[in-house]
Amino acid sequence: MASRTGRPFLQIPGPTDVPDSVLRAMAAPTIDHRGPRFAALTLRLLDALKPVFGTGGPVVIHPASGTGAWEAALVNTLSPGDRVLFCETGHFATLWQRMARSLGLDVLFLPGDWRHGADPDAVHRELAADRQHLIKAVCVVHNETSTGVTSRVPAIRQALDATGHPALLLVDAVSSLASTDYRHDAWGVDVTVAGSQKGLMLPPGLGLNAVSDKALRAARTARLPRSFWDWAPVIEANRHGFFPSTPATNLLYGLEEALRLLHAEGLPQVFARHARHGAATRAAVHGWGLDVLCADPREYSATLTAVVLPGGHDADHVRALVLDRFGMSLGAGLGRLTGRVLRIGHLGRLGDLTLAGTLAGVQMGLRLAGVPIDPGGLDAALDLLRAP
Amino acid sequence: MASRTGRPFLQIPGPTDVPDSVLRAMAAPTIDHRGPRFAALTLRLLDALKPVFGTGGPVVIHPASGTGAWEAALVNTLSPGDRVLFCETGHFATLWQRMARSLGLDVLFLPGDWRHGADPDAVHRELAADRQHLIKAVCVVHNETSTGVTSRVPAIRQALDATGHPALLLVDAVSSLASTDYRHDAWGVDVTVAGSQKGLMLPPGLGLNAVSDKALRAARTARLPRSFWDWAPVIEANRHGFFPSTPATNLLYGLEEALRLLHAEGLPQVFARHARHGAATRAAVHGWGLDVLCADPREYSATLTAVVLPGGHDADHVRALVLDRFGMSLGAGLGRLTGRVLRIGHLGRLGDLTLAGTLAGVQMGLRLAGVPIDPGGLDAALDLLRAP
Amino acid sequence: MASRTGRPFLQIPGPTDVPDSVLRAMAAPTIDHRGPRFAALTLRLLDALKPVFGTGGPVVIHPASGTGAWEAALVNTLSPGDRVLFCETGHFATLWQRMARSLGLDVLFLPGDWRHGADPDAVHRELAADRQHLIKAVCVVHNETSTGVTSRVPAIRQALDATGHPALLLVDAVSSLASTDYRHDAWGVDVTVAGSQKGLMLPPGLGLNAVSDKALRAARTARLPRSFWDWAPVIEANRHGFFPSTPATNLLYGLEEALRLLHAEGLPQVFARHARHGAATRAAVHGWGLDVLCADPREYSATLTAVVLPGGHDADHVRALVLDRFGMSLGAGLGRLTGRVLRIGHLGRLGDLTLAGTLAGVQMGLRLAGVPIDPGGLDAALDLLRAP
Amino acid sequence: MASRTGRPFLQIPGPTDVPDSVLRAMAAPTIDHRGPRFAALTLRLLDALKPVFGTGGPVVIHPASGTGAWEAALVNTLSPGDRVLFCETGHFATLWQRMARSLGLDVLFLPGDWRHGADPDAVHRELAADRQHLIKAVCVVHNETSTGVTSRVPAIRQALDATGHPALLLVDAVSSLASTDYRHDAWGVDVTVAGSQKGLMLPPGLGLNAVSDKALRAARTARLPRSFWDWAPVIEANRHGFFPSTPATNLLYGLEEALRLLHAEGLPQVFARHARHGAATRAAVHGWGLDVLCADPREYSATLTAVVLPGGHDADHVRALVLDRFGMSLGAGLGRLTGRVLRIGHLGRLGDLTLAGTLAGVQMGLRLAGVPIDPGGLDAALDLLRAP
Repeated sequence: MASRTGRPFLQIPGPTDVPDSVLRAMAAPTIDHRGPRFAALTLRLLDALKPVFGTGGPVVIHPASGTGAWEAALVNTLSPGDRVLFCETGHFATLWQRMARSLGLDVLFLPGDWRHGADPDAVHRELAADRQHLIKAVCVVHNETSTGVTSRVPAIRQALDATGHPALLLVDAVSSLASTDYRHDAWGVDVTVAGSQKGLMLPPGLGLNAVSDKALRAARTARLPRSFWDWAPVIEANRHGFFPSTPATNLLYGLEEALRLLHAEGLPQVFARHARHGAATRAAVHGWGLDVLCADPREYSATLTAVVLPGGHDADHVRALVLDRFGMSLGAGLGRLTGRVLRIGHLGRLGDLTLAGTLAGVQMGLRLAGVPIDPGGLDAALDLLRAP
Repeated sequence: MASRTGRPFLQIPGPTDVPDSVLRAMAAPTIDHRGPRFAALTLRLLDALKPVFGTGGPVVIHPASGTGAWEAALVNTLSPGDRVLFCETGHFATLWQRMARSLGLDVLFLPGDWRHGADPDAVHRELAADRQHLIKAVCVVHNETSTGVTSRVPAIRQALDATGHPALLLVDAVSSLASTDYRHDAWGVDVTVAGSQKGLMLPPGLGLNAVSDKALRAARTARLPRSFWDWAPVIEANRHGFFPSTPATNLLYGLEEALRLLHAEGLPQVFARHARHGAATRAAVHGWGLDVLCADPREYSATLTAVVLPGGHDADHVRALVLDRFGMSLGAGLGRLTGRVLRIGHLGRLGDLTLAGTLAGVQMGLRLAGVPIDPGGLDAALDLLRAP
Repeated sequence: MASRTGRPFLQIPGPTDVPDSVLRAMAAPTIDHRGPRFAALTLRLLDALKPVFGTGGPVVIHPASGTGAWEAALVNTLSPGDRVLFCETGHFATLWQRMARSLGLDVLFLPGDWRHGADPDAVHRELAADRQHLIKAVCVVHNETSTGVTSRVPAIRQALDATGHPALLLVDAVSSLASTDYRHDAWGVDVTVAGSQKGLMLPPGLGLNAVSDKALRAARTARLPRSFWDWAPVIEANRHGFFPSTPATNLLYGLEEALRLLHAEGLPQVFARHARHGAATRAAVHGWGLDVLCADPREYSATLTAVVLPGGHDADHVRALVLDRFGMSLGAGLGRLTGRVLRIGHLGRLGDLTLAGTLAGVQMGLRLAGVPIDPGGLDAALDLLRAP
Repeated sequence: MASRTGRPFLQIPGPTDVPDSVLRAMAAPTIDHRGPRFAALTLRLLDALKPVFGTGGPVVIHPASGTGAWEAALVNTLSPGDRVLFCETGHFATLWQRMARSLGLDVLFLPGDWRHGADPDAVHRELAADRQHLIKAVCVVHNETSTGVTSRVPAIRQALDATGHPALLLVDAVSSLASTDYRHDAWGVDVTVAGSQKGLMLPPGLGLNAVSDKALRAARTARLPRSFWDWAPVIEANRHGFFPSTPATNLLYGLEEALRLLHAEGLPQVFARHARHGAATRAAVHGWGLDVLCADPREYSATLTAVVLPGGHDADHVRALVLDRFGMSLGAGLGRLTGRVLRIGHLGRLGDLTLAGTLAGVQMGLRLAGVPIDPGGLDAALDLLRAP
């Protein structure tokens, strides 16, 4: 009989398995957030965060989750009734535009099939048609955590530039930041939304925004009510290393250690590692004779892979078996994908052998559930992991 | 020469010194927030939290700071332009009403001298005068962290009842909850606002609301834009142990251990301990011949004491000396009290000898700074701590 | 290019990967080892340890390593010049008899080929020939950590009984205890030697002895000099929960948590899990077309497997590759096996997916080193792990 | 009513309160003790330890307690029947000479009154009288943990030199090392005995020996049986960063952090801090009108103070009250001092305010127990702590 002892495998696409050194860093005693040690910590963190976002501008750390950082992006830059363009890339894009509606924005939601990223041509069409510039922001999920599809943000930027449209570009990089190449400044993103619990390898509890000058200017006139999420007092207090309200001190300890790990490995190497792990995972899926949900190889996610189960097979049954027999948590299909896909997270501080164990667990789970698969999926992944 | 080795003394009025067992609990690996272990944790937490608030109704845990819980209290219950009554008890009441203004509410701010709690008579007068019931909420800070004054919430409730006024009663219990007797239901509070980093003995990062039926009803028609802070989906998801967005998992681990500690000691004993420590601290202050800021003994705070420095002496200089020489952080005077008071936090998992060390440090700091004090302050505190 | 990020895989046959809850338990503040809390801890530990050894008698915990517990077994029961019979099962048996020589004992070392356990027939012959009962102790390594061969201790006991020989039976169970069925009392063992860092899932630092009545009687007249290792004052002080000298307090915290984990899983299930993992590992080795060092299937170790490399291939080169490319530590060949075998540890808090990752890493390492292996080794292991 | 919440005060003279950063360092995953990371750790540790002992020679780290390091000092350097000279400074000197007797040495035990250190004149007399140089070692406890008396080791060295006696000088520095100035080389000590749990601020579990060339030469011909304690294989394996048997890996992690803390503060400052704390503690004792056990101010211990209770008062009753009411552990009177003294430990990572809290607790405990004391003891200590 199998057993669930041993280290749990947390292979959902976030929260990711937090490195033990980050957990220990977080266990340090809480200090005075108005004192000199705290101020020095903040200043170090803000410096070390910038290259992760690819920005030279401010990064705002909210003591909140990534969902909060979504809200902050909207309420800091927009006014009641503003039109905003969203692209339906999957469940999280759907949630974000629903938030926008709740906050009183006028949402234009470009439909999608949940197997492709945001369509630059469609965005271009909408912007070109918007002669009056009623659209105030284009909102794109960079890496759809529900589908494993990565939108091509530079192409969206290009659509904005080609039409000369002044809309802000707001990007959810929650499940790509610190795992894949991301360039807030170079790509002309105005607000980047991120959270602590994915590539930053922390527990949930921090929401982050990188903010362009244009976004800061928009904030001066934006009229959605805001207080907790207001960037301006944070950026002002941050200049001296402080926060206007109580920050999540111990998560910040963890953030410092996580950033140390990222920079010690080197961001290019971090990105290459995630790319390899994505490729190895897809090699396994294809080796099993199954489909990856993402339909366009240009848009394969480096951080998670959604596996389409053959008709008549329930992905949640596979997940339950894998959890029960092997102690591994996999991601469920969300929204319209419920029961149809399972999502394998391969992001954060993941090593080759943990990925190998993960794929072995998925393979065993599929077999146990009676899903017909070809032999050789895991071997195909190992061939790739073994390659120089 | 003195030195700053040894355990730092974190004697600000929060964040408090987190018990080591809570810190270690938080260092457990993050788990799947959609899985069965997490659901069971949530249900245990919500059960254990209710008696701390003195409520049988829902408690909403936001992955955010106490400031966020302030905002949640307002945006869930009020509509743009609603009139709300605040009482100026100190810096935090001032900040909260400023937030209300930022969110588009019409604030009536009853002036105060920062040495008294909210004045029930003044509240009564305002409510009685409000024949049209334009006032939709009365907002009171239970324990003013900036002054060490505890408002008499039951008397405020009485003012509402006596006038038959239907306004909601919103109470900030950030620095009193889990340290002093607090009764959300019995006192007829509609929304209680709390945070993790004070009597709950956690790092900052959780904001909490206890919510009455009346507040839930108000939420159905309240029109301030809200999404992240919306109680309804949280309460709905909580029924099965889940959250609509990603919760702050590791802080919840800590919360479970903190609640275990509180219930193991017993809430009545926890409250008695804080009362003793408050009395001992005031005995020291009076023994030194100095004044406690709080002017009414009925309103002495059990969790912090603001000490008024004699004219010509700078409290921040004393604080800097104490930090530099003895590694102890004390609270600064805030707002109009800057430089005039120092605040001694005596809440959380505080023991008698740590309080004795704290008061010894304050006494030495006052002497080092040349503040004229009488001998015997510390002895007076020890007499009280020694008493059976 | 591969990388060494992610959790290290510590797959040497001990120290094993310590469960995170054990590590956190060890991080609790050190307490007074003369106080009541400590006494209660000791008494709980001694109770919970007995079933792990299969004994109703005393277990002595030395603040030392397993090597120290070897020395304790000898100096408590023997006198200078005493003859002791050892069986050459591998490197650790060789080290232990060398220790016995250093301590002034007269060692009879029955030769072995390092592929078999202690030979009961040979032991029988020696004992039968020893008419004068000059042999005072028979010393057997239960599970040879250098070879992955488990000696059949009951058969050795039978040899003693069949010859009516009064020698003591001393058994090294360092790498089998808490992982395989072990019965100090039922097998008639007089002293069992164990350490904290294998099946007990702790860091190194505790050496343990289970002691029979006969061994205690022998201790009364044994004349090897002893003080630190002396059982008598420990057993006496343990009655009240104390130790004669300073115990390794924080490791004892860890021991309590480790014992809790073992008893929560259930010892029979723990043993079955290790047996499954041993079988799966051997399935992989045989699937690769390689040999397991252990020559007798009755003596296969459940806790480690030594893999024989084909001639001309250097096991240490494979190990270095695996460490460098995949961050996994494997055990080296020791003594005469240097370079010829690699040892895979599969004991402690090991789960199926970690074992799968381990075997994937070995398979990749063998391939990278150019060792000719058949395909299908890992698949064979997964077939076994997947079986109900 | 008082309560025992809050941080426990561990004010026994060791184990000391381990700094939280040391505890967290110890909670890192155990690594392969045969791998390159471990080797690098060992080499760093051995380098950082030398200045703490004041030696340029080898320091041997045993995975054992300080009592084990006593045994190692004896069995590595002496032969059965060798005469050794001990000085009766207190309980631990008594235990150590008893160990020597158990190991078969011929002990000459110079009587003492437990209020003075080892008497250099008496040692001089014994050595001068030993024309045949039968005495092979002089054994001195540097800082008697049972009495709070520090022997003047340089004066003992002087006695050896003045008589030209070739005996080895073995010194127990268990409760002085890393807290007071100690100079293995400059004072001509041959073996220094230490443990992890005092000034090194670790949990118990490491025993240490600094070893002179003369001691190494003695080891070559010493004939007490030894194996586990044998220095030679340790020193040899240490050259490459390894140990002959399994080291206490996680305690070594803690040792690295502890040494970092010591060197960051600076050893001279560490020693000055302990001296100040000793002086402050004695100021309190004298202020209470009580006696310090140590009779000679030249021999006051910087790390602990034994307080003599007036006749008719039971020190253990005071200790029990203090533990029950204030959660503070104090040291008991040992051996002939049982019930007559209580010992206040003031060593390790102690800060001024923790010492103030400690002395406040002792003062309250004395009062609660009805011990007649003068007012002003604590104030006298604070005067000293406050001084520049």
